[in-house]
Amino acid sequence: MSVLILNKDQVQEVIDMREVIEKVRGVYQLKSQGKSVIWPLVNYEFKDEHAAMDIRSGYVKGEQLHGLKMLNNFPDNIEKGLPPFNGLMLVYDSNTGIPIGVMDASYITCMRTGAAGAIGVDALARKDAKHLMLLGAGKQAPFQIAATLILRPEIDKVYIVDPVNYPQAQGLAARIRQQLKEEFKIDAENVEFVAEESIEKAVKDSDAIITVTRATKPMIMKEWVKPGTHLSCLGSDMEGKEEIDPEIFKGAKIYADDLAQCVRVGEMEIPLINGVITKDDVAGEIGDLLSGNIAGRENDTETTIFDATGLYILDLVAAKVAITKAKEAHIGLEVEM
Amino acid sequence: MSVLILNKDQVQEVIDMREVIEKVRGVYQLKSQGKSVIWPLVNYEFKDEHAAMDIRSGYVKGEQLHGLKMLNNFPDNIEKGLPPFNGLMLVYDSNTGIPIGVMDASYITCMRTGAAGAIGVDALARKDAKHLMLLGAGKQAPFQIAATLILRPEIDKVYIVDPVNYPQAQGLAARIRQQLKEEFKIDAENVEFVAEESIEKAVKDSDAIITVTRATKPMIMKEWVKPGTHLSCLGSDMEGKEEIDPEIFKGAKIYADDLAQCVRVGEMEIPLINGVITKDDVAGEIGDLLSGNIAGRENDTETTIFDATGLYILDLVAAKVAITKAKEAHIGLEVEM
Repeated sequence: MSVLILNKDQVQEVIDMREVIEKVRGVYQLKSQGKSVIWPLVNYEFKDEHAAMDIRSGYVKGEQLHGLKMLNNFPDNIEKGLPPFNGLMLVYDSNTGIPIGVMDASYITCMRTGAAGAIGVDALARKDAKHLMLLGAGKQAPFQIAATLILRPEIDKVYIVDPVNYPQAQGLAARIRQQLKEEFKIDAENVEFVAEESIEKAVKDSDAIITVTRATKPMIMKEWVKPGTHLSCLGSDMEGKEEIDPEIFKGAKIYADDLAQCVRVGEMEIPLINGVITKDDVAGEIGDLLSGNIAGRENDTETTIFDATGLYILDLVAAKVAITKAKEAHIGLEVEM
Repeated sequence: MSVLILNKDQVQEVIDMREVIEKVRGVYQLKSQGKSVIWPLVNYEFKDEHAAMDIRSGYVKGEQLHGLKMLNNFPDNIEKGLPPFNGLMLVYDSNTGIPIGVMDASYITCMRTGAAGAIGVDALARKDAKHLMLLGAGKQAPFQIAATLILRPEIDKVYIVDPVNYPQAQGLAARIRQQLKEEFKIDAENVEFVAEESIEKAVKDSDAIITVTRATKPMIMKEWVKPGTHLSCLGSDMEGKEEIDPEIFKGAKIYADDLAQCVRVGEMEIPLINGVITKDDVAGEIGDLLSGNIAGRENDTETTIFDATGLYILDLVAAKVAITKAKEAHIGLEVEM
């Protein structure tokens, strides 16, 4: 029984954003057909170590893949000169239960999260959207920009805004064109990248907004959002996290990656608690939209929101892309287990 | 970040039963001090594939180890010429959250289960116990025999009984002395190994009994058990499994590896449901016994029972033995993740 081992560099070398996008789109649709299962989350807080771990797992019936991802978050490691965060994935063939890959999870997580945000933009932003805004200039931002530019090559301006670290936004704006070329093979010569200090100014000039911060209070106010804007909200994945003004939800067309999970920990958690919206105001899940079972944007003035909390089934299909590509290229280590 | 990868052969080559026994004994005691956590079990049945998987995980605070084990059981693989069962473990240093090992789980599971059964015998059987009986001559049996002979070298006769496969018992009896020598470095020249077809005959002549079958109805009857016998019951780890007559529990001193888990799925499940005993009849957990917090056997005529359902924290400490030994011997593959 031989298992492919891939470290972070190898995953990065072989994985391809275009294929990840197609697989993530497909798995959202499989989910809407009941062909996937998210298994219960296991998580734990190490009190003395000020640390946390979680185990996410699941099964994609349509792709015959199952597995898990174990993440460890030990912020105190920074003082020790050790990486504060690590993740490993185990991926199995669900026809035989035999493991097909053991791999670093971090790059895969970034790839599938980028694909998720961009699929929301592509499915819901106005067809003539030209200006994209990223709220949050951290690790996730380049993946969101890359995936969105693949799906919406008409975008000609990207605002990069970081609510807590403007220099980080400036740094990303300065290097992103090169990074898109080298890491994602995307030619963004005709795209203008602007580090903007004012959230308000950027929001007012954007057609599509992706939020990827750790914020716990609204950063984007309702009165700044112009008619017809789409928002993909990816930062909120725990109780109490919140990136946008709950009022933006009022009257908007709202989609979830997983309705139950979004209600519990997503961007819609607080608007639901506050009574700004009710569950009936949620149009449905993105997989139903992508499958054509429910309507999407119907005019150029409505606001649309995609609330994405992250699903392990996305990691599974993205990991499969890496495994397939690595095998083709003879990259990674085949270990007899 | 470099992680040690160990396959089954490498685990077998380096791991040592004596050290596993000490570690398992220690982790039972840590459990009794509240220094371990078993995280919730995740399991799933693949209906179309007639298969199942489970993810067991936990944390041993005293040893600063945490991790998981993912088991896949796909019996239909046999027809395909593939292994029907596999397991992988991820082991982490809980001071840093950094993975220290990725390894095959199957040999570790056998080792820690052998240690568990034997620790029950050693802690609870009469000091003058000479005859051991194994009910079940499958994969687990050699590990139970090895660990028990290490802890109780006075044992001079081992009955090997298999309720469904007598030739398997004969085969094991014929080869076990050699296997003990080669695999466990145990000299059993002075031990008589007897494949016995009659369960009754073997029970009547045994001082300590270890059960490791998949039985779902009692195989050992109360009237065969002589006064002062100890039973370590390891086969029952799912609802409905049962190896010994519930009447044996009446008046016996009963110990659990984990009380809540034994009540739910252990050998005591059915005696409790039938009302043969109540939870108050359970003396306590083995860890409390080993720590000296509760009494053990008090005379040479009482029956003692150790109900062991299996705990992931045992796998963790056993895996650590393998990792430490493998590093010393430069065995296994160090992979930069």
